[in-house]
Amino acid sequence: MTIRVTVWGENVHEHKHEVVGKLYPEGMHGQIAKTLNEDPEIEARTATLQEPEHGLTKEVLANTDVLTWWGHCAHGDVDDAIVDRVQTAVLQGMGLLVLHSGHFAKIFKRLMGTSCALKWREAGEKERLWCCNPGHAIAQGVPHSFELEHTEMYGEPFGIPTPDENVFISWFQGGEVFRSGCTWRRGAGKIFYFRPGHETYPIYYNETIQLILKNAVKWAKPEGTRWTDVRDAPHVPADKAPEPITVHGGSVH
Amino acid sequence: MTIRVTVWGENVHEHKHEVVGKLYPEGMHGQIAKTLNEDPEIEARTATLQEPEHGLTKEVLANTDVLTWWGHCAHGDVDDAIVDRVQTAVLQGMGLLVLHSGHFAKIFKRLMGTSCALKWREAGEKERLWCCNPGHAIAQGVPHSFELEHTEMYGEPFGIPTPDENVFISWFQGGEVFRSGCTWRRGAGKIFYFRPGHETYPIYYNETIQLILKNAVKWAKPEGTRWTDVRDAPHVPADKAPEPITVHGGSVH
Amino acid sequence: MTIRVTVWGENVHEHKHEVVGKLYPEGMHGQIAKTLNEDPEIEARTATLQEPEHGLTKEVLANTDVLTWWGHCAHGDVDDAIVDRVQTAVLQGMGLLVLHSGHFAKIFKRLMGTSCALKWREAGEKERLWCCNPGHAIAQGVPHSFELEHTEMYGEPFGIPTPDENVFISWFQGGEVFRSGCTWRRGAGKIFYFRPGHETYPIYYNETIQLILKNAVKWAKPEGTRWTDVRDAPHVPADKAPEPITVHGGSVH
Amino acid sequence: MTIRVTVWGENVHEHKHEVVGKLYPEGMHGQIAKTLNEDPEIEARTATLQEPEHGLTKEVLANTDVLTWWGHCAHGDVDDAIVDRVQTAVLQGMGLLVLHSGHFAKIFKRLMGTSCALKWREAGEKERLWCCNPGHAIAQGVPHSFELEHTEMYGEPFGIPTPDENVFISWFQGGEVFRSGCTWRRGAGKIFYFRPGHETYPIYYNETIQLILKNAVKWAKPEGTRWTDVRDAPHVPADKAPEPITVHGGSVH
Repeated sequence: MTIRVTVWGENVHEHKHEVVGKLYPEGMHGQIAKTLNEDPEIEARTATLQEPEHGLTKEVLANTDVLTWWGHCAHGDVDDAIVDRVQTAVLQGMGLLVLHSGHFAKIFKRLMGTSCALKWREAGEKERLWCCNPGHAIAQGVPHSFELEHTEMYGEPFGIPTPDENVFISWFQGGEVFRSGCTWRRGAGKIFYFRPGHETYPIYYNETIQLILKNAVKWAKPEGTRWTDVRDAPHVPADKAPEPITVHGGSVH
Repeated sequence: MTIRVTVWGENVHEHKHEVVGKLYPEGMHGQIAKTLNEDPEIEARTATLQEPEHGLTKEVLANTDVLTWWGHCAHGDVDDAIVDRVQTAVLQGMGLLVLHSGHFAKIFKRLMGTSCALKWREAGEKERLWCCNPGHAIAQGVPHSFELEHTEMYGEPFGIPTPDENVFISWFQGGEVFRSGCTWRRGAGKIFYFRPGHETYPIYYNETIQLILKNAVKWAKPEGTRWTDVRDAPHVPADKAPEPITVHGGSVH
Repeated sequence: MTIRVTVWGENVHEHKHEVVGKLYPEGMHGQIAKTLNEDPEIEARTATLQEPEHGLTKEVLANTDVLTWWGHCAHGDVDDAIVDRVQTAVLQGMGLLVLHSGHFAKIFKRLMGTSCALKWREAGEKERLWCCNPGHAIAQGVPHSFELEHTEMYGEPFGIPTPDENVFISWFQGGEVFRSGCTWRRGAGKIFYFRPGHETYPIYYNETIQLILKNAVKWAKPEGTRWTDVRDAPHVPADKAPEPITVHGGSVH
Repeated sequence: MTIRVTVWGENVHEHKHEVVGKLYPEGMHGQIAKTLNEDPEIEARTATLQEPEHGLTKEVLANTDVLTWWGHCAHGDVDDAIVDRVQTAVLQGMGLLVLHSGHFAKIFKRLMGTSCALKWREAGEKERLWCCNPGHAIAQGVPHSFELEHTEMYGEPFGIPTPDENVFISWFQGGEVFRSGCTWRRGAGKIFYFRPGHETYPIYYNETIQLILKNAVKWAKPEGTRWTDVRDAPHVPADKAPEPITVHGGSVH
C-alpha cells in the first residue's frame, strides 16, 4: 500500500533570502517531496503555511499517513487550532517527521512537553552522524557514520524527554555533540526528529539524508487503522461494568 | 533540609457539594497539607484557584520544591500563563504530583503531550492497588497490595506516554484495570501521577494513601539547584566554539 | 515477503500429562504453528527441546525471522550454548515472542537481566485483558478488552525492566493484575512477552489470542538485514580515525 | 546516613604494567576509594579479584549500598556464582557504578542483556563530555562540558538497551561520539555506566571526574530497605486469593 505523505513547509526563507531561494527554487518542501516521490512506495504532496488552514485541512490530515514538518522563523504564525488538529492526528496514528529547526515548532513542543531548546551556531562546519543502532528501520542502508561538509551546529543539552530510541548522534567540528535522530511514540503515532536540514546548505540533496527520510517515512507509517476515539473519556455506567457491582456513595454529578 | 511543598487545590466541589464539604471541611488541599505536615521533613502550605495568580506567583514557585495538583471541574479556569510558569518550574527541577482527576489538568496534558484520557465510573466500588516495584522510593512501607473500599473507577486505555516506572496498577471490582502510579522525568523535574483521590470518598484519610503521598514528595524533590536557563537556546559564536573552526557558507541572520 | 517463524516448544507436558496431551494432540507448538500458518504472510515450522541442538541450529536461526518460545518445566535443560546463539540472533534482528511460562526461560532472563519473577495461582479463574494502546500494531482488531474464562493467574510484581510499551494488562477474578503484553527492543531485535497460554486450558484455540499472535509476529519481524557484527568490538587504529590525530601516552597492549 | 561503598578493582594492570603501577601505586580501586572517602557522606572500602570470593562475600554485599566496578583484562576470571550474587544484590536495591572497560564485565552484560560492544582506539586523544541534562543528580556542579586531554576513545554503536537517562555524551578529537554516562533501573537497583577511566591516563585524578563519581554514588544509593524476596515466585493458593474464587480445570502439579 502506498504511503501518503504530506510535506509541510514554512515556505518563508525561500522567498525572503536569495541564498535559500537559489538552493531550493521549488522550496525546501518541494525538494523533500520530490525526493520522497522517487520511492515507489511513497506518494508525497506538499502543504505550506500560506495556504488556507496552512494546507492542513481535516480532509488532508485524514488522508495523510505521515506528515513531515520544516519550520524556522514563523513558528508563531501557525494557528493553535491547526496544532490541535495535527496533535490529534498523531495520537490517532499519523506518523510525524520533525526536521531540523522544527525542534521549536509548536507541534513538537506540544507533543514533547519540554523546552526543546538547544545550543546553535551557523558557521558551515563539518558534521559527522553516527548510528547508535545499525539494525533500526531508519538506519537501513546507512553506514555506521557519514559526513555533511557544511552544516549549522546544534548542541546539547537538547530539551527533550528521553527518546525511545536514539538512532543518530552528531559530532561537530567545532566540538559539540547532539542527539540528531530520535524516536518517540505518542498515542498510536510514531514521531522521528531528524536534525540535519539547514536552509542555506544543500542538505536535502545529500543521498544519505534522502535515504534516511525515505526510511523514516516507512518506519513512521500508521501501524493500523486510526484510533479515532483517542481523546474520548467514556463513562462506563455501573450497569455496563464488566463485572456486576452495587453502587455505593455520593457523587457531584 | 526541609522539603517545601505547595498543595494546590481547585477548591470548588468543597463549596458546591455538601458531600464533599462535609468530608473535607478544610478542603481537600487542607487535608493533604495537614497529612504532609505530619512528616518532619516536609513543610506544606496551600494555594487555590481562587487566589490571585491561583496562589502560584513567581515567588511561591521559586520557593516550592514539590507542587501537588488536584483539580476536576474547573481545569478550564486555570490561566494559561500560570500553566506556562508551572511547566517552566518543573523543567527547572520542581517536583510535581498530579492527583486523581488532575489527569485532565492543563499542566498534566502540557507535560505529557498526549490525550491523558481514560474510562471512568462513579459507583463506589472496591479498588485494589498492586505494587509493580516494591523497591521503589514511592512504595517504601507500602504492602504488595492494599484496598480502597469505595472508589471511583478509572480504566485503561490511559492516554499517557510510557511511564519511566509504573509503580502501581489498580484492580477494580467492576472489572477494569489502570496504571495508577506512574513516574516521568521532564527536564530536571520529576513527575508522579497518582490515581486515588476522589472527592466524595475519604481517600485522603487512608493511611496507606497518606504514606504514598509523603514518599512521593520525598522522591520528587529537586535533585539539585534549579536549572534556571532550561528554556534558553544560546547562540555559540564561531569564535567561541570549543574547537577552532573557519566560517563557511550563507546565513539568513 | 513471507515471515518465517520457528515455533519452539518444550514438548514435555504434552507427553507426561494426559490433560495436556488431549488438549494439544500435536503439541502446543503444533497448535501455535497451525494457527500462524493460517495467515498467508506467515510460514511457520516447529522445533522442540528434544531435537538435536533443540532444533535451533545455526542454519535454522539464520532462516528464522521470528522465534516463539514456550517452556515451563524444563527450562534448565536448555543448553547454554543454544541460549547464547538465540540471544545473538535476537540482537542481530530476529524477533522473539516469549509465551506464558516462558517468563522463566533462560533466554528471557538473559535478555531482560532481571528476575522475571511473578506471583501465580492455578485455579481456572477468569482473566480479562485490557488494551493500553488500541493503536499498537499488536492490538489491531483486538477489542478494548476480552475475556478468558479459565486461566492460570500471574500477578505483580513482575520482575522486568520497564517495557517500551505495555500493550495489555490483565484483571483476574481472584483479585490480581499483571502486565500481560510487553514490548522491548534489544539490539536490532524486537521482543514481545505475552502472558496467556497455560497448558491445561484451551488458550491457543481462542480466536483473539490467535489474532494477537499473528499481529505480534508481524510486529516483531526484522526491520532490515541482520546486524551481523552486533557483538564485535572493533579496534579503530589511530591512522584510520575519521579526523587526523597524533598518538599520545602509554598502553597496556 | 553514611553511604557504604565497595570499590571493586580487577587489580591486574597495576601489577603487570609499569605505566599503570606508577600512575596508581595504590591501585585504581585505591585511588577511587580515596576520592570517595573525601566526601563526609561516603564511606568507601575496596575489594579485588584476587581476594577469596573476589572480596564480595554475602556479608560484604549485604553491607554495601553502592558497588563500583572496574575490570578489563580478566573479566573471564570472575566466578559466575559471584556474578549471580551481585546481580541479586542489585535487583534487591544495591546501586552499581560500572566504570570504563567494565562495559564488558560479566555483571554489566548480565544486567543489560545486550552485547555491550563498542568501537575503541587507544591514542591519547582529547575527549569532551557534554551534559544532556544539567539538572540531573549526577551532573550537579558539573559544567555543560568539560575536557579530558588524553583518553582512550570509545565509539558508537554502543550495544546497550536505551538508557533511562543519557546524562553525558562524549566528543572525541578523532571524530567519534559515545553515550558516556547512562542510567538504568533493574529491580530496585540503580545502575550508572560512566565511560572515562582508562588505566594509562590519570583520569581518576581529574576533579570533575571525581565530582561525578561522588554524585553518582549519592544518586545510586538504595531508595529504601532491600527487596529481599525479589527473586521469589510465590504461589498464592486459591483459598488465599484476595477475592473468593472457585477452582476449575486441570493441573500438571
